[in-house]
Amino acid sequence: MGAADLHIFGISGSLRAGSYNMALLRAAAEMLPPGVTLETGRIDDLPLYNDDLRAAGDPEPVARLKRQIEAADAFLIATPECNYSIPGVLKNALDWASRPPKTCCLRQKPIGIMGCSSGESGTMRSQLALRQMFVFTDSYAMLQPELRVPRAGEVFDAAGRLTDEAIRERLGLFLRALADWARLVGQRS
Amino acid sequence: MGAADLHIFGISGSLRAGSYNMALLRAAAEMLPPGVTLETGRIDDLPLYNDDLRAAGDPEPVARLKRQIEAADAFLIATPECNYSIPGVLKNALDWASRPPKTCCLRQKPIGIMGCSSGESGTMRSQLALRQMFVFTDSYAMLQPELRVPRAGEVFDAAGRLTDEAIRERLGLFLRALADWARLVGQRS
Amino acid sequence: MGAADLHIFGISGSLRAGSYNMALLRAAAEMLPPGVTLETGRIDDLPLYNDDLRAAGDPEPVARLKRQIEAADAFLIATPECNYSIPGVLKNALDWASRPPKTCCLRQKPIGIMGCSSGESGTMRSQLALRQMFVFTDSYAMLQPELRVPRAGEVFDAAGRLTDEAIRERLGLFLRALADWARLVGQRS
Amino acid sequence: MGAADLHIFGISGSLRAGSYNMALLRAAAEMLPPGVTLETGRIDDLPLYNDDLRAAGDPEPVARLKRQIEAADAFLIATPECNYSIPGVLKNALDWASRPPKTCCLRQKPIGIMGCSSGESGTMRSQLALRQMFVFTDSYAMLQPELRVPRAGEVFDAAGRLTDEAIRERLGLFLRALADWARLVGQRS
Repeated sequence: MGAADLHIFGISGSLRAGSYNMALLRAAAEMLPPGVTLETGRIDDLPLYNDDLRAAGDPEPVARLKRQIEAADAFLIATPECNYSIPGVLKNALDWASRPPKTCCLRQKPIGIMGCSSGESGTMRSQLALRQMFVFTDSYAMLQPELRVPRAGEVFDAAGRLTDEAIRERLGLFLRALADWARLVGQRS
Repeated sequence: MGAADLHIFGISGSLRAGSYNMALLRAAAEMLPPGVTLETGRIDDLPLYNDDLRAAGDPEPVARLKRQIEAADAFLIATPECNYSIPGVLKNALDWASRPPKTCCLRQKPIGIMGCSSGESGTMRSQLALRQMFVFTDSYAMLQPELRVPRAGEVFDAAGRLTDEAIRERLGLFLRALADWARLVGQRS
Repeated sequence: MGAADLHIFGISGSLRAGSYNMALLRAAAEMLPPGVTLETGRIDDLPLYNDDLRAAGDPEPVARLKRQIEAADAFLIATPECNYSIPGVLKNALDWASRPPKTCCLRQKPIGIMGCSSGESGTMRSQLALRQMFVFTDSYAMLQPELRVPRAGEVFDAAGRLTDEAIRERLGLFLRALADWARLVGQRS
Repeated sequence: MGAADLHIFGISGSLRAGSYNMALLRAAAEMLPPGVTLETGRIDDLPLYNDDLRAAGDPEPVARLKRQIEAADAFLIATPECNYSIPGVLKNALDWASRPPKTCCLRQKPIGIMGCSSGESGTMRSQLALRQMFVFTDSYAMLQPELRVPRAGEVFDAAGRLTDEAIRERLGLFLRALADWARLVGQRS
């Protein structure tokens, strides 16, 4: 892997059409460091996790998600905060991704965590809840810088474009740090 | 509400047919204190939470779940541990239950938390993760006694019956404590 | 206990002279509902917890703290946030309070949690970390309303007086809710 | 740094003379991979953290602790579980270590977390609580393997020697993994 080539795969933990977290992923695509690419995936077509279903073979949307994570040098998650944790929708996707038959695609995967909330928390609590899950899956979630966007309604315009310049700049620094982190810990993979 | 009449509504966070947590709910039905009833519900037919969908009106399985929680004097949750937290499936159900249009049916609701794991944790970590969510929803989760069942494969028989007498007894005490707790904090509702 | 008589014992998790959290406790003393009293204690003279020391008998500052908690109808904690958790100083006090020889004075004790931070969190994370400890000690920490004061430097004056009227009002509502909560769950004691 | 030379500094979160966690550190000294050294420090002579005290200059025991952490290639923490979290004594040491005037000695420091409990948890909960603190300090805590020792009374002999062969072996693997982790992420420092 050359210093310039790094592929990030990203998902949003919110499914609504006007999701701030999906909008944050779109903004990320505009702020990538040179040589870094970002592909965004979907998790809305996964079934509810059921171990009987899994035992019969991964449904195609699950197999697709696993392939996308596996092919990426870093996995980027934009999470809302919902009842002081991550949405069930996002957890459902991670539950599928963490399971056999293939060796867990999350293992030793460099991970970036960011998030938008309408309120004051900026997803402080859901980001910490998410980190706990990655202890089990042995996933290398970057620690600092953290990217939290509180009062999201004030920083995106009606078309869902991130218009706050200070946050755009922090997003750029976050992505550069994620690329560096992925290069550091990704040596292991 | 007389001292003898108390209705519990219970769900399992695992969907597989042979779920230990569903088996624990069945065992609970056998160990109820006098005057206490237990109804078990399903969460496998809920859609993935999407705020656009919710805005269009609760899908029928969601409306049913909310009615069941609302009608109960206590809400009993049997949760596995999955990636050091509760399953996405269970979180998805709680995300739906916690949302308008009706005032949150979880608010000030007496709650019992228990769980089975195949491994050593007995759901230590997922139970704590679950408690954090109930801070936001202002739900009165009983603190002690806690009921955790590690190495679940050794305490249920092939038909899914809880055969460990010590655990059956602890389950009975747990349910009695839950009834007492519901009567104490349920005065408020 | 008459509806009008309720005694709260409070401590601050920060020891510095100009502590915002101690200032918040002082403000609480000005906003008490009728019939409610507040006594503030100290935790700066407790030794570091050592089980050998404890086995030899509680040092006098520890015995004093336990008596103060025991005598109170509710225990009020004003906590900073320090490394995303509560200060070691506060945890040290709770470690002592939670231990024998006397039955744990924290058991079934109604508890109020509030806190000030210089930064944006308003002690979101430390308050949740603190709640986890009270699961073990079976202490009845009030869930809602939560009282978090971010950017504390802007809401206290140089003399340490809470000058923000909106926060003063929320503090008054918080204390009234704590008194109601203590009356509800304190029936058990 | 040659592949063979790596220095670990370790502390125990329990102060009692017969501490299992201190005993686990002693066992670690016997199981080190080739070329790895382990020095054990003390935290029992630190004052309770007080920001006024800190502003006047680090007390000598604090300055010593910071020097020891700074000089180490990895920082190893053996923590008990106390009220579902780490002891106040340990948090107090980390609060001191995390503060200026010197740049935080915990920043980007490779860290190993292990722990013994008398009961069933093996410090599951306190280890997770500890990890949350290291998000703030940007400390690189190794994720897997985790080393938890439940029912510690059964695996150490009266002299405090770790006699359980399976756990000794896991401890050796844990230390080798920690050395590898320190070499991977320590490239950054």
